[in-house]
Amino acid sequence: MIDIIAFDADDTLWQSESLYFQAQREFEELLAPYHGDNGVVDALYETEIGNLPYYGYGIKSFALSMIETAVHMSDAKIDGRDIQRIIDLAKEMLSAPVQLLDQVEEVIAALSESYPLMVITKGDLVDQEAKVARSGLASYFSAVEVVSDKTPDVYRAVLAKHHLDPGSFLMVGNSLRSDILPVVSLGAQAVHIPYHITWEHEKVPEAAGQAAEFLEIEHIGLLLELVAKLEQGAQPESQPQRT
Amino acid sequence: MIDIIAFDADDTLWQSESLYFQAQREFEELLAPYHGDNGVVDALYETEIGNLPYYGYGIKSFALSMIETAVHMSDAKIDGRDIQRIIDLAKEMLSAPVQLLDQVEEVIAALSESYPLMVITKGDLVDQEAKVARSGLASYFSAVEVVSDKTPDVYRAVLAKHHLDPGSFLMVGNSLRSDILPVVSLGAQAVHIPYHITWEHEKVPEAAGQAAEFLEIEHIGLLLELVAKLEQGAQPESQPQRT
Repeated sequence: MIDIIAFDADDTLWQSESLYFQAQREFEELLAPYHGDNGVVDALYETEIGNLPYYGYGIKSFALSMIETAVHMSDAKIDGRDIQRIIDLAKEMLSAPVQLLDQVEEVIAALSESYPLMVITKGDLVDQEAKVARSGLASYFSAVEVVSDKTPDVYRAVLAKHHLDPGSFLMVGNSLRSDILPVVSLGAQAVHIPYHITWEHEKVPEAAGQAAEFLEIEHIGLLLELVAKLEQGAQPESQPQRT
Repeated sequence: MIDIIAFDADDTLWQSESLYFQAQREFEELLAPYHGDNGVVDALYETEIGNLPYYGYGIKSFALSMIETAVHMSDAKIDGRDIQRIIDLAKEMLSAPVQLLDQVEEVIAALSESYPLMVITKGDLVDQEAKVARSGLASYFSAVEVVSDKTPDVYRAVLAKHHLDPGSFLMVGNSLRSDILPVVSLGAQAVHIPYHITWEHEKVPEAAGQAAEFLEIEHIGLLLELVAKLEQGAQPESQPQRT
Protein backbone atom coordinates (compact mmCIF):
# COMPACT_ATOMS: atom_id res chain seq x y z
CA MET A 1 0.00 0.00 0.00
CA ILE A 2 2.80 2.44 0.85
CA ASP A 3 5.89 2.18 -1.36
CA ILE A 4 7.80 5.17 -0.04
CA ILE A 5 7.45 7.79 2.67
CA ALA A 6 8.61 11.35 2.03
CA PHE A 7 9.27 13.94 4.71
CA ASP A 8 9.31 17.67 4.65
CA ALA A 9 12.40 18.87 6.55
CA ASP A 10 12.05 22.32 8.16
CA ASP A 11 9.76 22.14 11.21
CA THR A 12 8.94 18.51 10.42
CA LEU A 13 12.31 16.88 11.13
CA TRP A 14 14.08 19.82 12.75
CA GLN A 15 13.45 23.33 14.03
CA SER A 16 13.55 26.08 11.44
CA GLU A 17 10.81 28.66 11.87
CA SER A 18 12.05 29.37 15.40
CA LEU A 19 15.36 30.50 13.85
CA TYR A 20 13.51 32.95 11.61
CA PHE A 21 11.36 34.04 14.53
CA GLN A 22 14.40 34.76 16.69
CA ALA A 23 16.18 36.58 13.85
CA GLN A 24 13.07 38.65 13.26
CA ARG A 25 13.02 39.74 16.90
CA GLU A 26 16.65 40.82 16.70
CA PHE A 27 15.84 42.62 13.46
CA GLU A 28 13.01 44.51 15.20
CA GLU A 29 15.38 45.59 17.99
CA LEU A 30 17.97 46.64 15.46
CA LEU A 31 15.46 48.84 13.62
CA ALA A 32 13.88 50.31 16.77
CA PRO A 33 16.25 53.33 16.95
CA TYR A 34 15.32 54.27 13.37
CA HIS A 35 11.66 53.57 13.35
CA GLY A 36 10.29 52.37 16.67
CA ASP A 37 8.92 48.87 16.97
CA ASN A 38 5.81 49.38 14.93
CA GLY A 39 5.21 47.64 11.67
CA VAL A 40 8.66 46.13 11.19
CA VAL A 41 7.40 42.55 11.00
CA ASP A 42 4.60 43.46 8.59
CA ALA A 43 6.94 45.46 6.39
CA LEU A 44 9.45 42.62 6.31
CA TYR A 45 6.73 40.14 5.39
CA GLU A 46 5.53 42.39 2.59
CA THR A 47 9.08 42.73 1.25
CA GLU A 48 9.60 38.95 1.44
CA ILE A 49 6.43 38.19 -0.50
CA GLY A 50 7.25 40.86 -3.08
CA ASN A 51 10.72 39.35 -3.50
CA LEU A 52 9.61 35.70 -3.79
CA PRO A 53 9.53 35.77 -7.62
CA TYR A 54 13.13 37.03 -7.62
CA TYR A 55 14.63 35.13 -4.72
CA GLY A 56 12.50 32.11 -3.85
CA TYR A 57 12.57 30.72 -0.32
CA GLY A 58 15.37 30.39 2.19
CA ILE A 59 17.73 32.27 4.47
CA LYS A 60 19.63 34.22 1.77
CA SER A 61 16.31 35.53 0.48
CA PHE A 62 15.29 36.39 4.04
CA ALA A 63 18.59 38.26 4.57
CA LEU A 64 18.23 40.30 1.38
CA SER A 65 14.65 41.17 2.33
CA MET A 66 15.73 42.20 5.85
CA ILE A 67 18.38 44.49 4.35
CA GLU A 68 15.91 46.02 1.92
CA THR A 69 13.36 46.54 4.70
CA ALA A 70 16.03 48.13 6.89
CA VAL A 71 16.96 50.61 4.15
CA HIS A 72 13.33 51.41 3.49
CA MET A 73 12.17 51.76 7.11
CA SER A 74 15.19 53.86 8.11
CA ASP A 75 14.72 56.23 5.17
CA ALA A 76 18.11 54.99 3.95
CA LYS A 77 19.74 56.12 7.23
CA ILE A 78 20.60 52.58 8.33
CA ASP A 79 24.18 52.39 9.62
CA GLY A 80 26.64 50.13 7.80
CA ARG A 81 27.34 48.28 11.05
CA ASP A 82 23.67 47.40 11.32
CA ILE A 83 23.72 46.08 7.75
CA GLN A 84 26.68 43.92 8.75
CA ARG A 85 24.73 42.74 11.81
CA ILE A 86 21.92 41.57 9.51
CA ILE A 87 24.44 39.68 7.37
CA ASP A 88 25.91 38.12 10.50
CA LEU A 89 22.42 37.10 11.62
CA ALA A 90 21.95 35.27 8.33
CA LYS A 91 25.29 33.51 8.67
CA GLU A 92 24.40 32.47 12.22
CA MET A 93 21.15 31.00 10.93
CA LEU A 94 22.98 29.20 8.11
CA SER A 95 25.47 27.62 10.49
CA ALA A 96 23.14 26.99 13.45
CA PRO A 97 23.19 23.45 14.81
CA VAL A 98 20.37 21.33 13.44
CA GLN A 99 17.92 20.75 16.30
CA LEU A 100 15.98 17.59 15.60
CA LEU A 101 12.41 17.59 16.87
CA ASP A 102 11.53 15.08 19.61
CA GLN A 103 11.56 11.41 18.61
CA VAL A 104 12.52 12.20 14.99
CA GLU A 105 15.66 10.09 15.03
CA GLU A 106 14.03 6.94 16.43
CA VAL A 107 10.97 7.20 14.17
CA ILE A 108 13.05 7.75 11.03
CA ALA A 109 15.41 4.90 11.98
CA ALA A 110 12.50 2.53 12.59
CA LEU A 111 10.62 3.45 9.39
CA SER A 112 13.79 3.14 7.32
CA GLU A 113 13.84 -0.57 8.11
CA SER A 114 10.56 -1.10 6.27
CA TYR A 115 10.39 1.71 3.69
CA PRO A 116 12.59 3.76 1.44
CA LEU A 117 12.45 7.29 2.84
CA MET A 118 13.02 10.56 1.08
CA VAL A 119 13.18 14.26 1.93
CA ILE A 120 11.29 16.81 -0.15
CA THR A 121 12.09 20.32 1.01
CA LYS A 122 12.00 23.80 -0.43
CA GLY A 123 14.49 26.59 0.11
CA ASP A 124 18.16 27.21 -0.52
CA LEU A 125 19.85 24.23 -2.13
CA VAL A 126 23.11 24.65 -0.23
CA ASP A 127 21.44 25.30 3.12
CA GLN A 128 19.04 22.38 2.86
CA GLU A 129 21.74 19.94 1.77
CA ALA A 130 24.00 21.13 4.58
CA LYS A 131 21.21 20.64 7.12
CA VAL A 132 20.54 17.10 5.94
CA ALA A 133 24.26 16.41 6.33
CA ARG A 134 24.47 18.05 9.78
CA SER A 135 21.27 16.33 10.98
CA GLY A 136 22.94 12.94 11.15
CA LEU A 137 19.92 11.50 9.31
CA ALA A 138 21.34 11.46 5.78
CA SER A 139 21.99 7.72 5.70
CA TYR A 140 18.29 6.95 6.31
CA PHE A 141 17.17 8.70 3.12
CA SER A 142 17.43 7.25 -0.35
CA ALA A 143 16.86 10.66 -1.95
CA VAL A 144 16.84 14.32 -0.99
CA GLU A 145 14.90 16.61 -3.31
CA VAL A 146 15.31 20.34 -2.80
CA VAL A 147 12.62 22.08 -4.83
CA SER A 148 11.97 25.74 -5.55
CA ASP A 149 8.31 25.51 -4.55
CA LYS A 150 5.85 22.83 -3.47
CA THR A 151 3.05 22.90 -6.01
CA PRO A 152 1.12 19.90 -7.41
CA ASP A 153 3.22 20.20 -10.60
CA VAL A 154 6.47 20.03 -8.66
CA TYR A 155 5.31 16.95 -6.70
CA ARG A 156 4.12 15.38 -9.95
CA ALA A 157 7.59 15.89 -11.45
CA VAL A 158 9.34 14.45 -8.38
CA LEU A 159 7.08 11.37 -8.42
CA ALA A 160 7.66 10.89 -12.15
CA LYS A 161 11.41 11.23 -11.76
CA HIS A 162 11.46 8.49 -9.14
CA HIS A 163 8.91 6.33 -11.01
CA LEU A 164 6.49 6.55 -8.06
CA ASP A 165 2.75 6.06 -8.14
CA PRO A 166 0.80 8.69 -6.15
CA GLY A 167 -1.46 5.94 -4.83
CA SER A 168 1.38 4.39 -2.85
CA PHE A 169 3.13 7.63 -1.85
CA LEU A 170 2.87 9.05 1.66
CA MET A 171 4.03 12.59 2.46
CA VAL A 172 4.60 13.82 6.02
CA GLY A 173 4.93 17.50 6.86
CA ASN A 174 3.93 20.48 8.94
CA SER A 175 2.61 22.81 6.24
CA LEU A 176 -0.93 22.32 4.91
CA ARG A 177 -0.12 24.60 2.02
CA SER A 178 3.15 22.98 0.96
CA ASP A 179 3.19 19.40 2.25
CA ILE A 180 -0.42 18.28 2.43
CA LEU A 181 -2.88 19.91 0.01
CA PRO A 182 -0.78 19.63 -3.20
CA VAL A 183 0.01 15.98 -2.45
CA VAL A 184 -3.60 15.08 -1.66
CA SER A 185 -4.66 16.76 -4.91
CA LEU A 186 -2.56 14.18 -6.79
CA GLY A 187 -4.30 11.27 -5.07
CA ALA A 188 -1.46 10.56 -2.65
CA GLN A 189 -1.77 10.26 1.12
CA ALA A 190 -0.50 12.88 3.53
CA VAL A 191 0.04 13.14 7.25
CA HIS A 192 -0.05 16.61 8.79
CA ILE A 193 2.01 17.22 11.92
CA PRO A 194 1.35 20.84 12.95
CA TYR A 195 4.27 22.85 14.30
CA HIS A 196 3.70 25.50 16.92
CA ILE A 197 4.87 28.37 14.72
CA THR A 198 3.68 28.74 11.13
CA TRP A 199 5.02 31.41 8.79
CA GLU A 200 2.16 33.63 7.63
CA HIS A 201 2.81 32.64 4.02
CA GLU A 202 2.25 28.93 4.76
CA LYS A 203 -1.17 29.45 6.31
CA VAL A 204 -4.23 28.43 4.32
CA PRO A 205 -7.86 29.42 4.76
CA GLU A 206 -9.56 26.96 7.09
CA ALA A 207 -12.01 25.99 4.36
CA ALA A 208 -9.20 24.78 2.09
CA GLY A 209 -7.88 22.52 4.82
CA GLN A 210 -11.33 21.14 5.56
CA ALA A 211 -12.05 20.33 1.95
CA ALA A 212 -9.12 17.95 1.66
CA GLU A 213 -8.79 14.45 3.06
CA PHE A 214 -5.67 13.79 5.05
CA LEU A 215 -4.51 12.52 8.40
CA GLU A 216 -3.24 14.56 11.28
CA ILE A 217 -1.15 13.57 14.29
CA GLU A 218 0.10 15.67 17.16
CA HIS A 219 3.74 14.67 16.96
CA ILE A 220 6.00 12.43 14.90
CA GLY A 221 6.14 9.86 17.69
CA LEU A 222 2.66 8.73 16.62
CA LEU A 223 3.68 8.09 13.02
CA LEU A 224 4.77 4.44 13.34
CA GLU A 225 1.40 3.41 14.71
CA LEU A 226 -0.43 5.40 12.06
CA VAL A 227 1.56 3.87 9.21
CA ALA A 228 0.92 0.39 10.61
CA LYS A 229 -2.82 1.08 10.64
CA LEU A 230 -2.73 2.46 7.09
CA GLU A 231 -0.99 -0.71 5.93
CA GLN A 232 -3.70 -2.82 7.57
CA GLY A 233 -6.23 -0.84 5.58
CA ALA A 234 -7.86 0.18 8.82
CA GLN A 235 -9.42 3.60 9.21
CA PRO A 236 -7.17 5.06 11.91
CA GLU A 237 -10.05 6.07 14.18
CA SER A 238 -7.92 7.48 16.91
CA GLN A 239 -6.54 10.10 14.53
CA PRO A 240 -8.47 13.16 13.60
CA GLN A 241 -9.35 12.83 9.94
CA ARG A 242 -10.89 15.74 8.14
CA THR A 243 -13.22 15.32 5.22
CA MET B 1 28.18 4.79 -27.45
CA ILE B 2 26.50 7.97 -26.15
CA ASP B 3 23.23 7.43 -24.24
CA ILE B 4 22.66 10.96 -23.06
CA ILE B 5 24.22 14.40 -23.46
CA ALA B 6 24.27 16.82 -20.54
CA PHE B 7 24.91 20.53 -20.80
CA ASP B 8 26.12 23.07 -18.34
CA ALA B 9 23.90 26.16 -18.60
CA ASP B 10 25.62 29.45 -17.64
CA ASP B 11 28.10 30.50 -20.35
CA THR B 12 27.51 27.23 -22.21
CA LEU B 13 23.91 27.73 -23.35
CA TRP B 14 23.49 31.39 -22.44
CA GLN B 15 25.45 34.39 -21.23
CA SER B 16 25.95 34.65 -17.50
CA GLU B 17 29.44 35.75 -16.52
CA SER B 18 28.99 38.93 -18.54
CA LEU B 19 26.09 39.86 -16.21
CA TYR B 20 28.36 39.44 -13.20
CA PHE B 21 31.11 41.35 -14.98
CA GLN B 22 28.80 44.27 -15.72
CA ALA B 23 27.41 44.29 -12.17
CA GLN B 24 30.94 44.26 -10.81
CA ARG B 25 31.81 47.34 -12.85
CA GLU B 26 28.79 49.18 -11.52
CA PHE B 27 29.74 48.05 -8.03
CA GLU B 28 33.23 49.51 -8.49
CA GLU B 29 31.77 52.84 -9.58
CA LEU B 30 29.39 52.81 -6.65
CA LEU B 31 32.24 52.28 -4.17
CA ALA B 32 34.61 54.77 -5.81
CA PRO B 33 33.46 57.76 -3.68
CA TYR B 34 34.20 55.77 -0.50
CA HIS B 35 37.37 54.05 -1.41
CA GLY B 36 38.66 54.89 -4.86
CA ASP B 37 38.76 52.23 -7.53
CA ASN B 38 41.57 50.18 -6.11
CA GLY B 39 41.13 46.70 -4.84
CA VAL B 40 37.33 46.52 -5.02
CA VAL B 41 37.26 43.52 -7.33
CA ASP B 42 39.86 41.63 -5.32
CA ALA B 43 38.08 42.37 -2.04
CA LEU B 44 34.77 41.23 -3.50
CA TYR B 45 36.32 38.02 -4.76
CA GLU B 46 37.84 37.34 -1.35
CA THR B 47 34.47 37.92 0.34
CA GLU B 48 32.73 35.64 -2.18
CA ILE B 49 35.16 32.78 -1.63
CA GLY B 50 34.96 33.21 2.16
CA ASN B 51 31.17 33.11 1.95
CA LEU B 52 30.92 30.05 -0.33
CA PRO B 53 30.51 27.60 2.58
CA TYR B 54 27.58 29.68 3.88
CA TYR B 55 25.92 30.76 0.66
CA GLY B 56 27.00 28.54 -2.21
CA TYR B 57 26.90 29.91 -5.76
CA GLY B 58 24.51 32.26 -7.50
CA ILE B 59 23.26 35.81 -7.69
CA LYS B 60 21.81 36.05 -4.16
CA SER B 61 25.18 34.98 -2.77
CA PHE B 62 26.89 37.52 -5.04
CA ALA B 63 24.53 40.25 -3.80
CA LEU B 64 25.14 39.47 -0.13
CA SER B 65 28.90 39.46 -0.76
CA MET B 66 28.71 42.80 -2.59
CA ILE B 67 26.83 44.31 0.36
CA GLU B 68 29.34 42.94 2.86
CA THR B 69 32.24 44.21 0.77
CA ALA B 70 30.59 47.63 0.51
CA VAL B 71 30.21 47.87 4.29
CA HIS B 72 33.79 46.75 4.82
CA MET B 73 35.45 48.94 2.16
CA SER B 74 33.49 52.04 3.18
CA ASP B 75 34.36 51.59 6.86
CA ALA B 76 30.62 51.11 7.42
CA LYS B 77 29.92 54.56 5.90
CA ILE B 78 28.05 53.16 2.90
CA ASP B 79 24.82 55.07 2.27
CA GLY B 80 21.52 53.21 2.51
CA ARG B 81 20.67 54.28 -1.03
CA ASP B 82 23.82 52.60 -2.30
CA ILE B 83 22.86 49.41 -0.45
CA GLN B 84 19.49 49.59 -2.21
CA ARG B 85 21.30 50.09 -5.52
CA ILE B 86 23.22 46.85 -4.93
CA ILE B 87 19.95 45.03 -4.20
CA ASP B 88 18.45 46.50 -7.37
CA LEU B 89 21.50 45.33 -9.34
CA ALA B 90 20.87 41.79 -8.10
CA LYS B 91 17.21 41.96 -9.07
CA GLU B 92 18.15 43.24 -12.52
CA MET B 93 20.50 40.29 -12.92
CA LEU B 94 17.81 37.86 -11.74
CA SER B 95 15.27 39.17 -14.22
CA ALA B 96 17.61 39.85 -17.15
CA PRO B 97 16.52 38.32 -20.46
CA VAL B 98 18.24 35.02 -21.17
CA GLN B 99 20.69 35.62 -24.02
CA LEU B 100 21.33 32.34 -25.79
CA LEU B 101 24.82 31.94 -27.21
CA ASP B 102 25.14 31.69 -30.99
CA GLN B 103 23.74 28.53 -32.60
CA VAL B 104 22.63 27.06 -29.24
CA GLU B 105 19.00 26.73 -30.21
CA GLU B 106 19.61 24.92 -33.51
CA VAL B 107 22.26 22.59 -32.06
CA ILE B 108 20.09 21.66 -29.06
CA ALA B 109 17.06 21.13 -31.29
CA ALA B 110 19.04 18.91 -33.67
CA LEU B 111 20.69 16.83 -30.92
CA SER B 112 17.36 16.35 -29.14
CA GLU B 113 16.15 14.35 -32.14
CA SER B 114 18.78 11.69 -31.51
CA TYR B 115 19.55 11.88 -27.78
CA PRO B 116 17.91 12.59 -24.47
CA LEU B 117 19.42 15.86 -23.27
CA MET B 118 19.77 17.18 -19.76
CA VAL B 119 21.00 20.30 -18.00
CA ILE B 120 23.36 20.06 -15.03
CA THR B 121 23.96 23.48 -13.54
CA LYS B 122 25.05 24.90 -10.23
CA GLY B 123 23.74 28.02 -8.51
CA ASP B 124 20.45 29.29 -7.16
CA LEU B 125 17.66 26.79 -7.64
CA VAL B 126 15.02 29.42 -8.38
CA ASP B 127 17.22 31.44 -10.70
CA GLN B 128 18.44 28.45 -12.69
CA GLU B 129 14.94 27.01 -13.10
CA ALA B 130 13.63 30.40 -14.14
CA LYS B 131 16.38 30.76 -16.76
CA VAL B 132 15.65 27.34 -18.23
CA ALA B 133 12.00 28.40 -18.47
CA ARG B 134 12.83 31.81 -19.99
CA SER B 135 15.37 30.33 -22.42
CA GLY B 136 12.69 28.68 -24.53
CA LEU B 137 14.76 25.47 -24.46
CA ALA B 138 12.95 23.65 -21.64
CA SER B 139 11.07 21.27 -23.91
CA TYR B 140 14.32 19.87 -25.34
CA PHE B 141 15.55 18.63 -21.95
CA SER B 142 14.35 15.48 -20.23
CA ALA B 143 15.84 16.59 -16.91
CA VAL B 144 17.24 19.71 -15.28
CA GLU B 145 19.51 19.12 -12.30
CA VAL B 146 20.48 22.14 -10.23
CA VAL B 147 23.30 21.09 -7.92
CA SER B 148 25.07 22.92 -5.11
CA ASP B 149 28.52 22.15 -6.49
CA LYS B 150 30.04 20.18 -9.36
CA THR B 151 32.33 17.63 -7.77
CA PRO B 152 32.91 14.02 -8.88
CA ASP B 153 30.63 12.87 -6.01
CA VAL B 154 27.83 15.13 -7.16
CA TYR B 155 28.10 13.90 -10.77
CA ARG B 156 28.24 10.30 -9.49
CA ALA B 157 24.99 10.88 -7.58
CA VAL B 158 23.28 12.47 -10.59
CA LEU B 159 24.33 9.57 -12.85
CA ALA B 160 23.13 7.03 -10.26
CA LYS B 161 19.80 8.79 -9.84
CA HIS B 162 19.18 8.63 -13.59
CA HIS B 163 20.58 5.08 -13.90
CA LEU B 164 23.28 6.30 -16.29
CA ASP B 165 26.58 4.63 -17.03
CA PRO B 166 29.56 7.05 -17.09
CA GLY B 167 30.91 5.25 -20.17
CA SER B 168 28.00 6.45 -22.28
CA PHE B 169 27.59 9.88 -20.72
CA LEU B 170 28.78 13.04 -22.48
CA MET B 171 29.02 16.36 -20.65
CA VAL B 172 29.37 19.70 -22.47
CA GLY B 173 30.42 22.88 -20.69
CA ASN B 174 32.66 25.92 -20.46
CA SER B 175 34.33 25.31 -17.11
CA LEU B 176 37.27 22.91 -16.88
CA ARG B 177 36.93 22.88 -13.11
CA SER B 178 33.19 22.22 -12.94
CA ASP B 179 32.10 20.62 -16.21
CA ILE B 180 35.09 18.73 -17.54
CA LEU B 181 37.62 17.44 -14.98
CA PRO B 182 35.14 15.90 -12.48
CA VAL B 183 33.26 14.15 -15.30
CA VAL B 184 36.42 12.81 -16.93
CA SER B 185 37.55 11.50 -13.53
CA LEU B 186 34.47 9.24 -13.50
CA GLY B 187 35.32 7.78 -16.90
CA ALA B 188 32.76 9.82 -18.82
CA GLN B 189 33.45 11.93 -21.88
CA ALA B 190 33.48 15.70 -21.87
CA VAL B 191 33.56 18.47 -24.44
CA HIS B 192 35.01 21.79 -23.37
CA ILE B 193 33.72 24.95 -25.06
CA PRO B 194 35.70 27.86 -23.60
CA TYR B 195 33.85 31.09 -22.93
CA HIS B 196 35.64 34.41 -23.29
CA ILE B 197 35.22 35.36 -19.62
CA THR B 198 35.97 32.89 -16.84
CA TRP B 199 35.35 33.66 -13.19
CA GLU B 200 38.61 33.46 -11.26
CA HIS B 201 37.22 30.68 -9.09
CA GLU B 202 36.55 28.44 -12.10
CA LYS B 203 40.09 28.62 -13.38
CA VAL B 204 42.34 25.60 -12.95
CA PRO B 205 46.12 25.32 -13.15
CA GLU B 206 47.14 24.57 -16.71
CA ALA B 207 48.76 21.32 -15.59
CA ALA B 208 45.45 19.98 -14.27
CA GLY B 209 43.80 20.64 -17.62
CA GLN B 210 46.63 19.00 -19.51
CA ALA B 211 46.55 15.86 -17.40
CA ALA B 212 42.98 15.04 -18.32
CA GLU B 213 41.67 13.65 -21.58
CA PHE B 214 38.79 15.54 -23.08
CA LEU B 215 37.73 17.22 -26.29
CA GLU B 216 37.61 20.91 -26.99
CA ILE B 217 35.73 22.88 -29.61
CA GLU B 218 35.66 26.58 -30.27
CA HIS B 219 31.90 27.03 -30.29
CA ILE B 220 28.76 24.94 -29.87
CA GLY B 221 28.11 25.03 -33.63
CA LEU B 222 30.83 22.37 -33.99
CA LEU B 223 29.19 19.97 -31.55
CA LEU B 224 26.98 18.06 -34.02
CA GLU B 225 29.93 17.09 -36.16
CA LEU B 226 31.99 16.11 -33.10
CA VAL B 227 29.22 13.91 -31.69
CA ALA B 228 28.81 12.20 -35.06
CA LYS B 229 32.53 11.42 -35.13
CA LEU B 230 32.46 10.10 -31.56
CA GLU B 231 29.61 7.78 -32.51
CA GLN B 232 31.62 6.47 -35.48
CA GLY B 233 34.39 5.67 -33.03
CA ALA B 234 36.70 7.92 -35.03
CA GLN B 235 39.35 9.96 -33.30
CA PRO B 236 38.12 13.45 -34.12
CA GLU B 237 41.41 14.65 -35.58
CA SER B 238 40.28 18.10 -36.46
CA GLN B 239 39.58 18.82 -32.80
CA PRO B 240 42.29 19.67 -30.36
CA GLN B 241 42.51 16.79 -27.92
CA ARG B 242 44.69 17.12 -24.87
CA THR B 243 46.29 14.15 -23.22
